[in-house]
Amino acid sequence: MVTTTAAPAPHELTSKGRATRARIVEHAAELIYAKGVHATNNEQLRRAAGVSGSQLNHYFPTKESLVLAVIAWQAERVLTFHRDERFTGFDNLEALREWADFYVGYERAYQEGCTLGSLASEIIKTDLDVHDELASAFDQWRGIFREGIERMQRLGRISAEANPAQLAHLFLAAFQGGMLLAQVARDIAPLKDALQAAIDHLQTFATSPDADGVQAR
Amino acid sequence: MVTTTAAPAPHELTSKGRATRARIVEHAAELIYAKGVHATNNEQLRRAAGVSGSQLNHYFPTKESLVLAVIAWQAERVLTFHRDERFTGFDNLEALREWADFYVGYERAYQEGCTLGSLASEIIKTDLDVHDELASAFDQWRGIFREGIERMQRLGRISAEANPAQLAHLFLAAFQGGMLLAQVARDIAPLKDALQAAIDHLQTFATSPDADGVQAR
Repeated sequence: MVTTTAAPAPHELTSKGRATRARIVEHAAELIYAKGVHATNNEQLRRAAGVSGSQLNHYFPTKESLVLAVIAWQAERVLTFHRDERFTGFDNLEALREWADFYVGYERAYQEGCTLGSLASEIIKTDLDVHDELASAFDQWRGIFREGIERMQRLGRISAEANPAQLAHLFLAAFQGGMLLAQVARDIAPLKDALQAAIDHLQTFATSPDADGVQAR
Repeated sequence: MVTTTAAPAPHELTSKGRATRARIVEHAAELIYAKGVHATNNEQLRRAAGVSGSQLNHYFPTKESLVLAVIAWQAERVLTFHRDERFTGFDNLEALREWADFYVGYERAYQEGCTLGSLASEIIKTDLDVHDELASAFDQWRGIFREGIERMQRLGRISAEANPAQLAHLFLAAFQGGMLLAQVARDIAPLKDALQAAIDHLQTFATSPDADGVQAR
Protein backbone atom coordinates (compact mmCIF):
# COMPACT_ATOMS: atom_id res chain seq x y z
CA MET A 1 0.00 0.00 0.00
CA VAL A 2 2.75 2.44 0.86
CA THR A 3 5.47 1.31 -1.51
CA THR A 4 6.79 2.22 -4.90
CA THR A 5 7.69 -0.51 -7.37
CA ALA A 6 11.23 -0.51 -6.03
CA ALA A 7 10.46 -0.67 -2.30
CA PRO A 8 9.60 -3.96 -0.59
CA ALA A 9 6.06 -4.04 0.83
CA PRO A 10 5.81 -4.85 4.56
CA HIS A 11 4.23 -8.26 3.86
CA GLU A 12 7.24 -9.20 1.70
CA LEU A 13 9.60 -8.74 4.64
CA THR A 14 10.76 -11.06 7.41
CA SER A 15 9.56 -10.16 10.90
CA LYS A 16 12.97 -8.64 11.60
CA GLY A 17 12.72 -6.65 8.37
CA ARG A 18 9.27 -5.44 9.30
CA ALA A 19 10.55 -4.28 12.68
CA THR A 20 13.42 -2.36 11.09
CA ARG A 21 11.10 -0.80 8.53
CA ALA A 22 8.64 0.18 11.28
CA ARG A 23 11.44 1.77 13.32
CA ILE A 24 12.53 3.85 10.33
CA VAL A 25 8.96 4.99 9.63
CA GLU A 26 8.35 5.93 13.25
CA HIS A 27 11.52 8.03 13.46
CA ALA A 28 10.84 9.59 10.07
CA ALA A 29 7.33 10.55 11.21
CA GLU A 30 8.74 12.10 14.37
CA LEU A 31 11.41 14.10 12.54
CA ILE A 32 9.00 15.26 9.86
CA TYR A 33 6.40 16.29 12.43
CA ALA A 34 8.94 18.33 14.39
CA LYS A 35 10.96 19.84 11.54
CA GLY A 36 9.04 19.37 8.32
CA VAL A 37 9.70 17.20 5.25
CA HIS A 38 12.30 19.48 3.71
CA ALA A 39 14.43 19.80 6.83
CA THR A 40 14.50 16.03 7.39
CA ASN A 41 17.45 14.34 5.71
CA ASN A 42 18.76 10.79 5.47
CA GLU A 43 21.67 11.44 7.81
CA GLN A 44 19.37 12.55 10.66
CA LEU A 45 17.03 9.67 10.00
CA ARG A 46 19.81 7.08 9.94
CA ARG A 47 21.12 8.36 13.28
CA ALA A 48 17.68 8.53 14.89
CA ALA A 49 16.59 5.08 13.74
CA GLY A 50 20.04 3.49 14.17
CA VAL A 51 20.22 2.08 10.65
CA SER A 52 22.85 2.17 7.95
CA GLY A 53 22.54 4.06 4.69
CA SER A 54 22.14 0.83 2.75
CA GLN A 55 19.39 -0.37 5.10
CA LEU A 56 17.52 2.91 4.70
CA ASN A 57 17.94 2.68 0.95
CA HIS A 58 16.71 -0.91 0.91
CA TYR A 59 13.42 -0.12 2.64
CA PHE A 60 12.91 3.34 1.16
CA PRO A 61 14.76 3.83 -2.11
CA THR A 62 13.16 7.27 -2.66
CA LYS A 63 11.97 10.15 -0.52
CA GLU A 64 8.53 9.56 -2.01
CA SER A 65 8.38 5.98 -0.73
CA LEU A 66 9.36 7.23 2.73
CA VAL A 67 6.80 10.06 2.75
CA LEU A 68 4.10 7.64 1.61
CA ALA A 69 4.91 5.33 4.52
CA VAL A 70 4.82 8.28 6.94
CA ILE A 71 1.43 9.38 5.58
CA ALA A 72 0.09 5.84 6.06
CA TRP A 73 1.54 5.71 9.58
CA GLN A 74 0.14 9.11 10.64
CA ALA A 75 -3.24 8.36 9.04
CA GLU A 76 -3.44 5.06 10.92
CA ARG A 77 -2.72 6.83 14.22
CA VAL A 78 -5.23 9.64 13.65
CA LEU A 79 -7.98 7.25 12.54
CA THR A 80 -7.31 4.84 15.40
CA PHE A 81 -7.47 7.72 17.89
CA HIS A 82 -10.80 8.91 16.50
CA ARG A 83 -12.19 5.37 16.53
CA ASP A 84 -11.32 4.95 20.20
CA GLU A 85 -14.31 3.70 22.16
CA ARG A 86 -14.25 6.72 24.45
CA PHE A 87 -15.67 8.76 21.56
CA THR A 88 -18.46 6.20 20.94
CA GLY A 89 -18.33 6.89 17.22
CA PHE A 90 -19.14 10.57 17.83
CA ASP A 91 -22.82 9.78 18.19
CA ASN A 92 -23.38 12.53 20.80
CA LEU A 93 -22.28 16.07 21.51
CA GLU A 94 -20.41 15.20 24.68
CA ALA A 95 -18.03 13.02 22.66
CA LEU A 96 -17.25 15.97 20.39
CA ARG A 97 -16.57 18.14 23.43
CA GLU A 98 -14.22 15.53 24.83
CA TRP A 99 -12.45 15.32 21.48
CA ALA A 100 -12.06 19.12 21.29
CA ASP A 101 -10.80 19.24 24.89
CA PHE A 102 -8.15 16.67 24.08
CA TYR A 103 -6.63 18.72 21.26
CA VAL A 104 -7.05 22.05 23.04
CA GLY A 105 -5.14 20.61 25.99
CA TYR A 106 -2.44 18.87 23.95
CA GLU A 107 0.35 21.42 23.86
CA ARG A 108 2.40 19.83 21.13
CA ALA A 109 -0.52 19.69 18.75
CA TYR A 110 -0.88 23.43 18.56
CA GLN A 111 2.84 24.06 18.58
CA GLU A 112 3.51 21.74 15.68
CA GLY A 113 0.07 21.33 14.14
CA CYS A 114 -1.97 18.34 13.14
CA THR A 115 0.31 15.41 12.28
CA LEU A 116 -1.52 14.82 9.02
CA GLY A 117 -2.61 18.37 8.18
CA SER A 118 0.83 19.92 8.54
CA LEU A 119 2.30 17.14 6.41
CA ALA A 120 -0.36 17.72 3.75
CA SER A 121 0.23 21.47 3.73
CA GLU A 122 3.93 21.08 3.34
CA ILE A 123 3.92 18.59 0.49
CA ILE A 124 0.78 19.49 -1.43
CA LYS A 125 2.67 21.70 -3.88
CA THR A 126 5.68 19.46 -4.26
CA ASP A 127 5.99 16.91 -7.04
CA LEU A 128 5.88 13.99 -4.60
CA ASP A 129 3.20 11.68 -5.94
CA VAL A 130 1.36 11.14 -2.67
CA HIS A 131 -1.93 12.82 -3.43
CA ASP A 132 -4.22 9.78 -3.46
CA GLU A 133 -2.97 8.55 -0.08
CA LEU A 134 -3.54 11.97 1.50
CA ALA A 135 -7.00 12.33 0.01
CA SER A 136 -7.97 8.87 1.18
CA ALA A 137 -6.80 9.55 4.75
CA PHE A 138 -8.77 12.79 5.03
CA ASP A 139 -11.79 11.15 3.45
CA GLN A 140 -11.83 8.39 6.05
CA TRP A 141 -11.34 10.95 8.81
CA ARG A 142 -14.29 13.02 7.66
CA GLY A 143 -16.33 9.82 7.34
CA ILE A 144 -15.96 9.22 11.08
CA PHE A 145 -17.61 12.59 11.84
CA ARG A 146 -20.26 12.18 9.16
CA GLU A 147 -21.28 8.74 10.38
CA GLY A 148 -21.43 10.01 13.96
CA ILE A 149 -23.73 12.86 13.01
CA GLU A 150 -25.88 10.50 10.92
CA ARG A 151 -26.19 8.24 13.97
CA MET A 152 -27.20 11.24 16.10
CA GLN A 153 -30.01 11.80 13.62
CA ARG A 154 -31.13 8.16 13.63
CA LEU A 155 -31.13 8.22 17.43
CA GLY A 156 -33.33 11.31 17.33
CA ARG A 157 -30.70 13.40 19.12
CA ILE A 158 -30.48 16.02 16.41
CA SER A 159 -32.93 17.24 13.83
CA ALA A 160 -33.29 15.69 10.38
CA GLU A 161 -32.58 19.17 9.04
CA ALA A 162 -28.90 18.91 9.92
CA ASN A 163 -26.65 18.06 6.94
CA PRO A 164 -24.12 15.45 8.17
CA ALA A 165 -21.82 15.68 5.14
CA GLN A 166 -21.65 19.47 5.43
CA LEU A 167 -21.21 19.47 9.20
CA ALA A 168 -18.43 16.87 8.93
CA HIS A 169 -16.58 19.25 6.61
CA LEU A 170 -17.11 22.06 9.13
CA PHE A 171 -15.58 19.99 11.94
CA LEU A 172 -12.57 18.88 9.95
CA ALA A 173 -12.02 22.36 8.45
CA ALA A 174 -12.38 24.09 11.84
CA PHE A 175 -9.85 21.62 13.24
CA GLN A 176 -7.31 22.00 10.42
CA GLY A 177 -7.72 25.76 10.13
CA GLY A 178 -7.72 26.21 13.90
CA MET A 179 -4.49 24.22 14.15
CA LEU A 180 -2.81 26.36 11.51
CA LEU A 181 -3.95 29.61 13.14
CA ALA A 182 -2.87 28.34 16.57
CA GLN A 183 0.59 27.55 15.22
CA VAL A 184 0.85 31.00 13.64
CA ALA A 185 -0.45 32.78 16.74
CA ARG A 186 1.50 30.53 19.12
CA ASP A 187 -1.70 30.47 21.11
CA ILE A 188 -4.40 27.83 21.43
CA ALA A 189 -7.29 30.32 21.25
CA PRO A 190 -8.01 30.00 17.50
CA LEU A 191 -8.38 26.22 17.72
CA LYS A 192 -10.39 26.38 20.93
CA ASP A 193 -12.76 29.02 19.55
CA ALA A 194 -13.24 27.34 16.18
CA LEU A 195 -14.04 23.94 17.68
CA GLN A 196 -16.32 25.43 20.35
CA ALA A 197 -18.27 27.38 17.71
CA ALA A 198 -18.56 24.29 15.47
CA ILE A 199 -19.92 22.24 18.37
CA ASP A 200 -22.27 25.10 19.32
CA HIS A 201 -23.54 25.02 15.77
CA LEU A 202 -24.27 21.30 15.86
CA GLN A 203 -26.03 21.85 19.18
CA THR A 204 -28.49 24.23 17.49
CA PHE A 205 -29.87 21.08 15.83
CA ALA A 206 -30.34 19.24 19.14
CA THR A 207 -33.86 17.97 19.64
CA SER A 208 -33.55 17.30 23.38
CA PRO A 209 -31.03 17.33 26.24
CA ASP A 210 -30.42 13.71 25.25
CA ALA A 211 -28.29 14.98 22.36
CA ASP A 212 -25.46 15.18 24.86
CA GLY A 213 -25.63 11.43 25.09
CA VAL A 214 -25.34 11.57 28.87
CA GLN A 215 -28.71 9.95 29.53
CA ALA A 216 -28.13 7.33 26.88
CA ARG A 217 -24.99 5.90 28.41
CA MET B 1 8.88 46.87 7.28
CA VAL B 2 9.83 43.92 5.13
CA THR B 3 13.58 44.15 5.20
CA THR B 4 16.44 42.68 7.12
CA THR B 5 19.32 44.89 8.23
CA ALA B 6 21.11 44.13 4.98
CA ALA B 7 18.24 44.79 2.55
CA PRO B 8 17.32 48.33 1.50
CA ALA B 9 13.83 49.38 2.64
CA PRO B 10 11.48 50.55 -0.13
CA HIS B 11 11.56 54.17 1.10
CA GLU B 12 15.34 54.19 0.78
CA LEU B 13 15.10 53.43 -2.94
CA THR B 14 14.72 55.64 -5.99
CA SER B 15 11.42 55.34 -7.83
CA LYS B 16 13.15 53.12 -10.41
CA GLY B 17 14.56 50.99 -7.60
CA ARG B 18 11.14 50.70 -6.01
CA ALA B 19 9.65 49.55 -9.32
CA THR B 20 12.35 46.89 -9.76
CA ARG B 21 11.92 45.71 -6.18
CA ALA B 22 8.13 45.54 -6.63
CA ARG B 23 8.53 43.52 -9.84
CA ILE B 24 10.76 41.00 -8.07
CA VAL B 25 8.31 40.66 -5.16
CA GLU B 26 5.35 40.21 -7.47
CA HIS B 27 7.05 37.44 -9.45
CA ALA B 28 8.34 35.80 -6.29
CA ALA B 29 4.83 35.78 -4.84
CA GLU B 30 3.49 34.22 -8.03
CA LEU B 31 6.17 31.51 -8.17
CA ILE B 32 5.82 30.72 -4.47
CA TYR B 33 2.03 30.53 -4.70
CA ALA B 34 2.18 28.14 -7.64
CA LYS B 35 5.14 25.97 -6.61
CA GLY B 36 5.88 26.59 -2.94
CA VAL B 37 8.82 28.29 -1.21
CA HIS B 38 11.18 25.33 -1.47
CA ALA B 39 10.70 24.79 -5.19
CA THR B 40 11.27 28.47 -5.99
CA ASN B 41 14.89 29.29 -6.71
CA ASN B 42 16.82 32.40 -7.68
CA GLU B 43 17.31 31.29 -11.26
CA GLN B 44 13.55 30.99 -11.90
CA LEU B 45 12.92 34.28 -10.15
CA ARG B 46 15.62 36.13 -12.11
CA ARG B 47 14.16 34.87 -15.38
CA ALA B 48 10.55 35.63 -14.42
CA ALA B 49 11.29 39.13 -13.14
CA GLY B 50 13.90 39.91 -15.81
CA VAL B 51 16.61 40.96 -13.35
CA SER B 52 20.26 40.01 -12.92
CA GLY B 53 21.64 37.99 -10.06
CA SER B 54 23.33 41.06 -8.60
CA GLN B 55 20.09 43.05 -8.77
CA LEU B 56 18.23 40.27 -6.99
CA ASN B 57 20.96 40.09 -4.40
CA HIS B 58 20.92 43.85 -3.91
CA TYR B 59 17.22 44.00 -3.06
CA PHE B 60 16.97 40.65 -1.31
CA PRO B 61 20.31 39.48 0.07
CA THR B 62 18.71 36.45 1.79
CA LYS B 63 15.80 34.12 1.16
CA GLU B 64 14.34 35.35 4.44
CA SER B 65 14.25 38.96 3.25
CA LEU B 66 12.47 37.83 0.07
CA VAL B 67 9.93 35.67 1.92
CA LEU B 68 9.23 38.55 4.32
CA ALA B 69 8.51 40.83 1.36
CA VAL B 70 6.22 38.21 -0.18
CA ILE B 71 4.33 37.82 3.11
CA ALA B 72 3.86 41.60 3.31
CA TRP B 73 2.72 41.68 -0.33
CA GLN B 74 0.23 38.81 0.04
CA ALA B 75 -1.05 40.18 3.36
CA GLU B 76 -1.64 43.58 1.77
CA ARG B 77 -3.62 41.99 -1.08
CA VAL B 78 -5.75 39.79 1.20
CA LEU B 79 -6.51 42.65 3.60
CA THR B 80 -7.27 45.08 0.78
CA PHE B 81 -9.64 42.55 -0.78
CA HIS B 82 -11.49 42.04 2.51
CA ARG B 83 -11.71 45.79 3.09
CA ASP B 84 -13.30 46.34 -0.34
CA GLU B 85 -16.44 48.39 -0.02
CA ARG B 86 -18.57 45.66 -1.58
CA PHE B 87 -18.26 43.76 1.72
CA THR B 88 -19.32 46.85 3.76
CA GLY B 89 -17.00 45.81 6.59
CA PHE B 90 -18.85 42.48 6.92
CA ASP B 91 -21.59 44.13 8.94
CA ASN B 92 -24.30 41.84 7.52
CA LEU B 93 -24.80 38.21 6.57
CA GLU B 94 -25.23 38.90 2.88
CA ALA B 95 -21.69 40.28 2.72
CA LEU B 96 -20.35 37.05 4.24
CA ARG B 97 -22.29 35.05 1.66
CA GLU B 98 -20.84 37.15 -1.15
CA TRP B 99 -17.35 36.65 0.28
CA ALA B 100 -17.83 32.86 0.50
CA ASP B 101 -19.22 32.75 -3.04
CA PHE B 102 -16.15 34.55 -4.34
CA TYR B 103 -13.72 31.97 -2.98
CA VAL B 104 -15.93 29.00 -3.78
CA GLY B 105 -16.06 30.20 -7.38
CA TYR B 106 -12.38 31.07 -7.69
CA GLU B 107 -10.88 27.94 -9.17
CA ARG B 108 -7.27 28.79 -8.53
CA ALA B 109 -7.88 29.40 -4.85
CA TYR B 110 -8.86 25.84 -4.15
CA GLN B 111 -6.32 24.35 -6.49
CA GLU B 112 -3.44 26.20 -4.89
CA GLY B 113 -4.89 27.28 -1.55
CA CYS B 114 -5.05 30.57 0.27
CA THR B 115 -2.14 32.79 -0.79
CA LEU B 116 -1.28 33.52 2.83
CA GLY B 117 -2.37 30.27 4.47
CA SER B 118 -0.45 27.99 2.14
CA LEU B 119 2.64 30.16 2.60
CA ALA B 120 2.23 30.00 6.38
CA SER B 121 1.80 26.22 6.35
CA GLU B 122 4.88 25.70 4.26
CA ILE B 123 7.26 27.87 6.25
CA ILE B 124 5.96 27.57 9.79
CA LYS B 125 8.39 24.78 10.67
CA THR B 126 11.37 26.22 8.86
CA ASP B 127 13.98 28.37 10.56
CA LEU B 128 13.01 31.45 8.51
CA ASP B 129 12.45 34.22 11.05
CA VAL B 130 9.14 35.44 9.66
CA HIS B 131 6.80 34.49 12.46
CA ASP B 132 5.84 37.98 13.68
CA GLU B 133 4.91 39.16 10.19
CA LEU B 134 2.68 36.12 9.63
CA ALA B 135 1.01 36.44 13.02
CA SER B 136 0.35 40.14 12.44
CA ALA B 137 -1.22 39.51 9.02
CA PHE B 138 -3.61 36.85 10.33
CA ASP B 139 -4.43 39.00 13.34
CA GLN B 140 -5.48 41.89 11.12
CA TRP B 141 -7.49 39.55 8.92
CA ARG B 142 -9.38 38.12 11.87
CA GLY B 143 -9.93 41.67 13.12
CA ILE B 144 -11.91 42.48 9.97
CA PHE B 145 -14.39 39.68 10.73
CA ARG B 146 -14.52 40.46 14.44
CA GLU B 147 -15.25 44.12 13.86
CA GLY B 148 -17.94 43.26 11.31
CA ILE B 149 -19.69 40.94 13.76
CA GLU B 150 -19.40 43.53 16.53
CA ARG B 151 -21.04 46.05 14.21
CA MET B 152 -23.84 43.57 13.47
CA GLN B 153 -24.45 43.48 17.21
CA ARG B 154 -24.44 47.27 17.61
CA LEU B 155 -26.86 47.54 14.71
CA GLY B 156 -29.13 45.03 16.45
CA ARG B 157 -28.83 42.56 13.57
CA ILE B 158 -27.55 39.73 15.71
CA SER B 159 -28.01 38.90 19.37
CA ALA B 160 -25.72 40.21 22.10
CA GLU B 161 -25.15 36.54 22.98
CA ALA B 162 -22.92 36.01 19.94
CA ASN B 163 -19.19 36.05 20.71
CA PRO B 164 -17.52 38.08 17.93
CA ALA B 165 -13.95 37.08 18.81
CA GLN B 166 -14.88 33.40 18.80
CA LEU B 167 -16.95 33.61 15.63
CA ALA B 168 -14.14 35.47 13.85
CA HIS B 169 -11.85 32.54 14.65
CA LEU B 170 -14.50 30.16 13.29
CA PHE B 171 -14.68 32.04 10.00
CA LEU B 172 -10.94 32.24 9.50
CA ALA B 173 -10.39 28.62 10.60
CA ALA B 174 -13.21 27.31 8.37
CA PHE B 175 -11.67 29.24 5.49
CA GLN B 176 -8.10 28.04 6.05
CA GLY B 177 -9.08 24.46 6.86
CA GLY B 178 -11.59 24.36 4.02
CA MET B 179 -8.90 25.55 1.60
CA LEU B 180 -6.49 22.85 2.73
CA LEU B 181 -9.13 20.11 2.48
CA ALA B 182 -10.22 21.37 -0.95
CA GLN B 183 -6.62 21.21 -2.18
CA VAL B 184 -6.23 17.68 -0.84
CA ALA B 185 -9.58 16.51 -2.25
CA ARG B 186 -9.13 18.46 -5.51
CA ASP B 187 -12.74 19.43 -4.99
CA ILE B 188 -14.31 22.65 -3.75
CA ALA B 189 -16.91 20.90 -1.54
CA PRO B 190 -14.96 21.04 1.76
CA LEU B 191 -14.51 24.82 1.50
CA LYS B 192 -18.07 25.41 0.34
CA ASP B 193 -19.54 23.29 3.13
CA ALA B 194 -17.36 24.74 5.88
CA LEU B 195 -18.12 28.35 4.93
CA GLN B 196 -21.83 27.66 4.49
CA ALA B 197 -22.05 26.01 7.90
CA ALA B 198 -20.11 28.86 9.55
CA ILE B 199 -22.48 31.42 8.00
CA ASP B 200 -25.48 29.27 9.03
CA HIS B 201 -24.14 29.34 12.56
CA LEU B 202 -23.87 33.13 12.63
CA GLN B 203 -27.41 33.27 11.26
CA THR B 204 -28.70 31.41 14.32
CA PHE B 205 -27.91 34.64 16.21
CA ALA B 206 -29.94 36.82 13.81
CA THR B 207 -32.56 38.92 15.54
CA SER B 208 -34.55 39.79 12.41
CA PRO B 209 -34.52 39.45 8.62
CA ASP B 210 -32.59 42.72 8.71
CA ALA B 211 -29.49 40.74 9.66
CA ASP B 212 -29.07 40.11 5.96
CA GLY B 213 -28.41 43.80 5.63
CA VAL B 214 -30.60 43.99 2.55
CA GLN B 215 -33.08 46.43 4.02
CA ALA B 216 -30.34 48.57 5.47
CA ARG B 217 -28.63 49.31 2.18
